[in-house]
Amino acid sequence: MCAWKKPVRGAFAELTKQHSDKLQSLLSHSRSKASTAADVLETYNRDWMRQVHGNSRLLISPATTSEMASILAYCNEHRLAVCPQGGNTGLVFGSTPVHDEVIVSTARMNNAPEIHPTTMSTTTEAGVILQVLQQDAKAQGLLVPLDMGSKGSCFIGGALSTNAGGIHFARYGSMRSNCLGLEVVTPQGQILDLMSSLRKDNAGYDLKQLFVGSEGTLGIITKAEVKLFPYPKSSQVVLLHVSNFSEVLRTFSCATRTLSECLSAFEVMDAESLLCSGLADYPFEHIKGSFTILVETHGADHEHDFAKLGNFVQACEDEKINVLAQVLSQSEQQTRKLWSLREELPVKLAQAGTIYKFDVSFPLPQFYDVVEHIRGVARNGSGKFQLPEDEVAIVGYGHFGDGNVHLNIIDRTRGKHTADLKEILYPGAYEFTAKARRGSVSAEHGIGLQKKEYMSLSRSPEVIEVMRQLKKMMDPNGILNPYKVL
Amino acid sequence: MCAWKKPVRGAFAELTKQHSDKLQSLLSHSRSKASTAADVLETYNRDWMRQVHGNSRLLISPATTSEMASILAYCNEHRLAVCPQGGNTGLVFGSTPVHDEVIVSTARMNNAPEIHPTTMSTTTEAGVILQVLQQDAKAQGLLVPLDMGSKGSCFIGGALSTNAGGIHFARYGSMRSNCLGLEVVTPQGQILDLMSSLRKDNAGYDLKQLFVGSEGTLGIITKAEVKLFPYPKSSQVVLLHVSNFSEVLRTFSCATRTLSECLSAFEVMDAESLLCSGLADYPFEHIKGSFTILVETHGADHEHDFAKLGNFVQACEDEKINVLAQVLSQSEQQTRKLWSLREELPVKLAQAGTIYKFDVSFPLPQFYDVVEHIRGVARNGSGKFQLPEDEVAIVGYGHFGDGNVHLNIIDRTRGKHTADLKEILYPGAYEFTAKARRGSVSAEHGIGLQKKEYMSLSRSPEVIEVMRQLKKMMDPNGILNPYKVL
Repeated sequence: MCAWKKPVRGAFAELTKQHSDKLQSLLSHSRSKASTAADVLETYNRDWMRQVHGNSRLLISPATTSEMASILAYCNEHRLAVCPQGGNTGLVFGSTPVHDEVIVSTARMNNAPEIHPTTMSTTTEAGVILQVLQQDAKAQGLLVPLDMGSKGSCFIGGALSTNAGGIHFARYGSMRSNCLGLEVVTPQGQILDLMSSLRKDNAGYDLKQLFVGSEGTLGIITKAEVKLFPYPKSSQVVLLHVSNFSEVLRTFSCATRTLSECLSAFEVMDAESLLCSGLADYPFEHIKGSFTILVETHGADHEHDFAKLGNFVQACEDEKINVLAQVLSQSEQQTRKLWSLREELPVKLAQAGTIYKFDVSFPLPQFYDVVEHIRGVARNGSGKFQLPEDEVAIVGYGHFGDGNVHLNIIDRTRGKHTADLKEILYPGAYEFTAKARRGSVSAEHGIGLQKKEYMSLSRSPEVIEVMRQLKKMMDPNGILNPYKVL
Repeated sequence: MCAWKKPVRGAFAELTKQHSDKLQSLLSHSRSKASTAADVLETYNRDWMRQVHGNSRLLISPATTSEMASILAYCNEHRLAVCPQGGNTGLVFGSTPVHDEVIVSTARMNNAPEIHPTTMSTTTEAGVILQVLQQDAKAQGLLVPLDMGSKGSCFIGGALSTNAGGIHFARYGSMRSNCLGLEVVTPQGQILDLMSSLRKDNAGYDLKQLFVGSEGTLGIITKAEVKLFPYPKSSQVVLLHVSNFSEVLRTFSCATRTLSECLSAFEVMDAESLLCSGLADYPFEHIKGSFTILVETHGADHEHDFAKLGNFVQACEDEKINVLAQVLSQSEQQTRKLWSLREELPVKLAQAGTIYKFDVSFPLPQFYDVVEHIRGVARNGSGKFQLPEDEVAIVGYGHFGDGNVHLNIIDRTRGKHTADLKEILYPGAYEFTAKARRGSVSAEHGIGLQKKEYMSLSRSPEVIEVMRQLKKMMDPNGILNPYKVL
């Protein structure tokens, strides 16, 4: 659930039968696809959370870059609005049509990715599914730097367009920093060849940066070269249960010092999120106000990583960190089980009631403030609202190492508190994030349609004006992913 | 020595006494400085290699961002060209005036940097010297990701404006990927607040990317937030002598597999560069066609890193890599001595004769091709030139892990072969790089004035056209660092 307003339709042309036929005739490759069938279009017209439903009457899936270029050139010439779509797994309604935009999908640009062990990189088309790429890379002893829950259905093109983060961000960096090259089609149908496997390349402005994270509003990414890393020979997981948030901060400090270069994830879940999710396999006693930390290492030597984990646990003890309990994984199976606590959390929470999700980021010491703030307001802290704990859960979990907290509010009554929650959360949660704590209203999910009206909380009018100029420069007719970001 | 043409002066206003007085009157802070004295301006008017000499008559060094904003607004209003300058250590004439541009230096924006151990980042003004920042960070157990020969005089602002690389790029990433936030003054004198210490922040277009690596042509960076890393508790160095280039490639493959997350540098020098430099402390026998590799590790545990280095050496043996000899550093003093072989190389080569320098990059397997190609042409390979080995040295060294080779040609006669070398090298070396090997004409030094006419070898006309549009958008009057990049 979230608050968003359907924008008024822009002054774009209506898609006539003639347009539709012409666009379909631009596809000549055997793997390209198009559809005007309502039942086919249904899944492409709605977002993953089923909150936005567009009314597109044409889905077009070119298999080649030159087809993509012809399609965009035609749409631009005829002022037809375009909604670029990858795996459509985004959480801010960035890849779903709002009105009758032509859906241009990269699903058919999914030839098997090329894995290059010598340059430690991959040449991949935009429509390749993340998990496919992960498997192909692993077969050659290499690791894709991105990993996240949607890996089975999200596309590489979408991951780049949204600068996706995920669980290994702190160790391996952002999609932006792992992108070596791009091929992009502009709204005018021009192909920009920014492909490269070079690690260092300072020949003029680095234009690929324009397209990473701009959510398909400046161009459509059709191909990319992405860095790969040596596949870790050893991966260890330890789960810690600590008494309160300040102990999380201290534990992180120990982890960066003792695990250092082999630390690959530091995920945090508060007691409320674990309680609310009702996960069966939680190995600790539920204690109010406590936090559960999942620490993962990736390294080249099992014994070294194991020894470093020992140093880490010892350091926590030496510094008298209040660790209530801990589990060190003893097998691959146990590792998967411990990870599933964190990975299944979003789905379990969504099942527990009507869910309100916030993906925000903070400097580390302020990581948990927004959860406590919203809890304070909702539990009579403002003297106005009194939402009972057994009806409304207010929880926080996330990628602590990146300062990225997922604030979730679950109305277990599925509706009783809608009015109150909307009043508390919008724009309250974002205002607190950006104004009271100088955090970002979007950590890793982007702006899309959902956060458009809140972006100005994190960005000054001067900065937003430069964004507008950029959009105008790249897409003067505004046909590409309208209603999103700006 | 290099080939470049002095561009015609643009249609900018002449700096009158009135302009000069007015600009100086905009400085009110006690630490700000201005000068019109010819002897003071002398060092600011020429580049580090003493090949370009501008004719600026005003140096202005604001101490605050608001002063910087007023200065640029005035210059823009009056069409006065501006040359932004940091430490002026660049190697492509990017920070030196070409004609009579007003030199706007960030030297007085050098308040002590703030080091933030909790967020593992620093807030630093543009004029802070890299080495000062390194020392301040080290005092708090933190490492600045950038290290390079010019650290004693280059500024952080310049390092960001040029997306500087250096010796630890492969491990810690580019300045671009380590930049969390920026404060920038636009050519119109507007202050863009893009400061942030957040690791993840996807709220709209990431505008700071426009200013990283654009060499002061789109805006002047005045402040930055830069990532820091845990200072390594252990650093090991091993020097290897291998028989030929294919053994370098195989050694690198062993290093990435066995050293993995603790590998922090993999520098390569060919036999010719070491011979030509005449370094006294070279521990191996000089053998023609051989290569010397410096492998460095950074880690959290001395014993682990030492063991991994053992595994690495063993793996080289197991794979029958032709290692002629090797030295494992036994002390900090010896580590410094081994590093000095690599660090002193550029200066020693420059002292050996008239030097022609090329900073180019390639996919790893093609790293050394350009050196062999130029050698082939110069040594009668084309049937046209016959430059004797004892008079003209053609050498290659560089950051192998990044594919970044520094091709250097040293005319020991200091002039006898100038005409031949210019004919062979310009544009020959760049054409071979970009066209025959899909490398970049600029790996880490940027374009500046020096490589302007070669950029089109690495970038398509469509891509350069978008760069021009960006420049036009940000700086419609073209006052900022004219004659550079585009």
